[in-house]
Amino acid sequence: MNAIHVIEGGITAPKGFAAAGAHVGLRRKRKDLALIVSEKSAACAAVFTTNAIKGAPILWNKEVLSGTDHVRAIVVNSAYANSGTGQPGLAHAKQMAQTTAGCLGLSPDEVLVASTGIIGIHLPIDVITAGIAHTAPLLDNTMESGTYAAEAITTTDTFIKQMAVEFEVNGAKVTVGAMAKGSGMVHPNMATTLGFLTTDLAIAPELLKKALSSVIVDTFNMISVDGDTSTNDMVVLLANGLADNPSIESEDDEYELFVHVLQMMLTQLAKSVARDGEGASKLIEVIVSGTDTVDDARKCARAVVASTLVKAAVFAEDANWGRIVAALGNAGVAIEYDKLSISMFGNGLHVPLLLDGMPYWMDESICRSALQSNEVRFVICAGESQHQATAWGCDLTYDYIKKNGNYRAGQLTAKVGLVKEEGVA
Amino acid sequence: MNAIHVIEGGITAPKGFAAAGAHVGLRRKRKDLALIVSEKSAACAAVFTTNAIKGAPILWNKEVLSGTDHVRAIVVNSAYANSGTGQPGLAHAKQMAQTTAGCLGLSPDEVLVASTGIIGIHLPIDVITAGIAHTAPLLDNTMESGTYAAEAITTTDTFIKQMAVEFEVNGAKVTVGAMAKGSGMVHPNMATTLGFLTTDLAIAPELLKKALSSVIVDTFNMISVDGDTSTNDMVVLLANGLADNPSIESEDDEYELFVHVLQMMLTQLAKSVARDGEGASKLIEVIVSGTDTVDDARKCARAVVASTLVKAAVFAEDANWGRIVAALGNAGVAIEYDKLSISMFGNGLHVPLLLDGMPYWMDESICRSALQSNEVRFVICAGESQHQATAWGCDLTYDYIKKNGNYRAGQLTAKVGLVKEEGVA
Repeated sequence: MNAIHVIEGGITAPKGFAAAGAHVGLRRKRKDLALIVSEKSAACAAVFTTNAIKGAPILWNKEVLSGTDHVRAIVVNSAYANSGTGQPGLAHAKQMAQTTAGCLGLSPDEVLVASTGIIGIHLPIDVITAGIAHTAPLLDNTMESGTYAAEAITTTDTFIKQMAVEFEVNGAKVTVGAMAKGSGMVHPNMATTLGFLTTDLAIAPELLKKALSSVIVDTFNMISVDGDTSTNDMVVLLANGLADNPSIESEDDEYELFVHVLQMMLTQLAKSVARDGEGASKLIEVIVSGTDTVDDARKCARAVVASTLVKAAVFAEDANWGRIVAALGNAGVAIEYDKLSISMFGNGLHVPLLLDGMPYWMDESICRSALQSNEVRFVICAGESQHQATAWGCDLTYDYIKKNGNYRAGQLTAKVGLVKEEGVA
Repeated sequence: MNAIHVIEGGITAPKGFAAAGAHVGLRRKRKDLALIVSEKSAACAAVFTTNAIKGAPILWNKEVLSGTDHVRAIVVNSAYANSGTGQPGLAHAKQMAQTTAGCLGLSPDEVLVASTGIIGIHLPIDVITAGIAHTAPLLDNTMESGTYAAEAITTTDTFIKQMAVEFEVNGAKVTVGAMAKGSGMVHPNMATTLGFLTTDLAIAPELLKKALSSVIVDTFNMISVDGDTSTNDMVVLLANGLADNPSIESEDDEYELFVHVLQMMLTQLAKSVARDGEGASKLIEVIVSGTDTVDDARKCARAVVASTLVKAAVFAEDANWGRIVAALGNAGVAIEYDKLSISMFGNGLHVPLLLDGMPYWMDESICRSALQSNEVRFVICAGESQHQATAWGCDLTYDYIKKNGNYRAGQLTAKVGLVKEEGVA
């Protein structure tokens, strides 16, 4: 396999992608509007939330992508999710696409839209359209611009999440860039949170879509912060072909290499989202193997990582592994208890907890040392099969409750009077 | 319909039931062992946890009830759940039944067993068998004995949960008594937590079972504290016939009256369990109507009441109803957003939040006043049908995290060294 190099930067690293991020007045101080533009029409793959109630941007994007598999730009605002906002919300999403298209000389159906923030408040659309006009001239392909965009899409995230990777395809240098945001209402299913990837790879749109779908299932779909899947989740991958590699047209070695790169990048971003879960002090990794099917392994890993009681125990550095057992039992998977083993890893320690259904004697001080790590791993073996899955999450802390109590106030410039000013209802 | 009187007391209120609760050394100070005995063989109805991993007492009881529908006694310990304990755990459950039977002159298969507490630690069985021998002589039918038993089955509960009701069946006075425990790992499905009901009603065993099953679905199955269904949940209902009413043998008016009484009592106990959820400061009631089926209404109500984000917002007294929308969308039910309305009730205030899919203008100070109530109700209308369901839960507080961090230490007499003393693994 070719060498894969992680390089500095994010979505502006691949050829032909420009970005911008700016503060346009949706939040108190932080950047709140981002643009991504490809200089050439880019093949597009996207996965969207499975929440039955979908935010207006999701509906807009689905409409656009039902007619084409190429787009040119993405506009993203934070602070307001434009979800639960009915027909006016849909009109606002369209208006964001139209304004972006107008500023960039594109057609509105070449522009995807994303929003993240509070659900149920109508967008202050005049602030946003003015903001788009303000941000468009800032577009460029420097690393800083990519970072500004990554900053603008965050909500309660404590750090920005971006990454870029270089590799070779038939002698051509190919680059993939990515950015994502967490950090609450994270419990994805077929997509999560917001994730945007850019690449200059030349690849058939159908294979681009297949590549994204095949890696989402074991990356972004395997993280949980609080068990609630957002109404606005999406991951979008744009490929503009400017690397000038011979276009990938079949599932050959080059395709597999690309899938491998995506898998690596989305795993890394997914873990960053989990680690930066609201109020989190520890990353929890749960590896489940030996189940009847790989889907059973995924269900088990997700059930454990999402258990409120497991998360609270990890925060308290208490090796209460009985809660792991209870969570496994609630996963909707048949478990043979006599074949169940559980180990814990942290701070370089390996602590066996349960061996073939028999509790292992635990040295509490060793347990506590392992749990004091900021990265705790539970390895669960449920039988002899080769099936395996990994899920990532975080502990449940006092800070989660604090952040979630202050959430609306923390996100908005003015308290919700905005709704009234918008003349709604 | 006949008058129904709520009277003082609990499980010892009906004729022919004795109880005892004592401290036998499983916990530091609090009572930790309970016995319930009927002076005459009693018809038995029971529902058990749907967790795929079942505690040893559940397995024992299922075995007993596969051979009979009559029992005489129940023995319950707190502190240890005897779950995740493999074959030795099963032997311990049987030993509890045998010891109880020996003390009371019964056969072991006339004795049901329940355990609640930490999962994954072998019972200190010698302490328990000695404890049963110590507690059996304390059995009597006074109100105090019932209260002691109700006290002994609690874990992190902050108050005991018991109740008794009197009504008339064809001129005979019939009494039903009940006790239950919460307060963590509460997210029942086909049964929850521990609930024990006694009655002197004469009724055919098949109808007793039908009555219990029919009321569980909208009472104990509609509460959630933390989304985790325990491995040890059960609700057991004993009927010894000593009221001397003409036995209920068909689904006649008397049967309906009894079902009504059970419904009322289990609703009351379920709400008590929800209100006393670990660390809870507020009871949350979610009423959903207008869905395509009653099961859809149940799913929606349960999804909202179990949402970590909704619970955190209620704790913070923040009317962030967008989280209700997101939780509804995750319920696995098709929602027509244009028909969705949400109102909030608290402190005598009625606050509309969403009307037919349009956000309602909210006065933040009125919202806050409503949310300052220790009982907050969300009424969600999803359409025009008559289907309706109610779920109960509680807010997510700093105290939940504190309690769950300290749980093992708080429950045990000695830190888990016990396991070593028991010579396990």
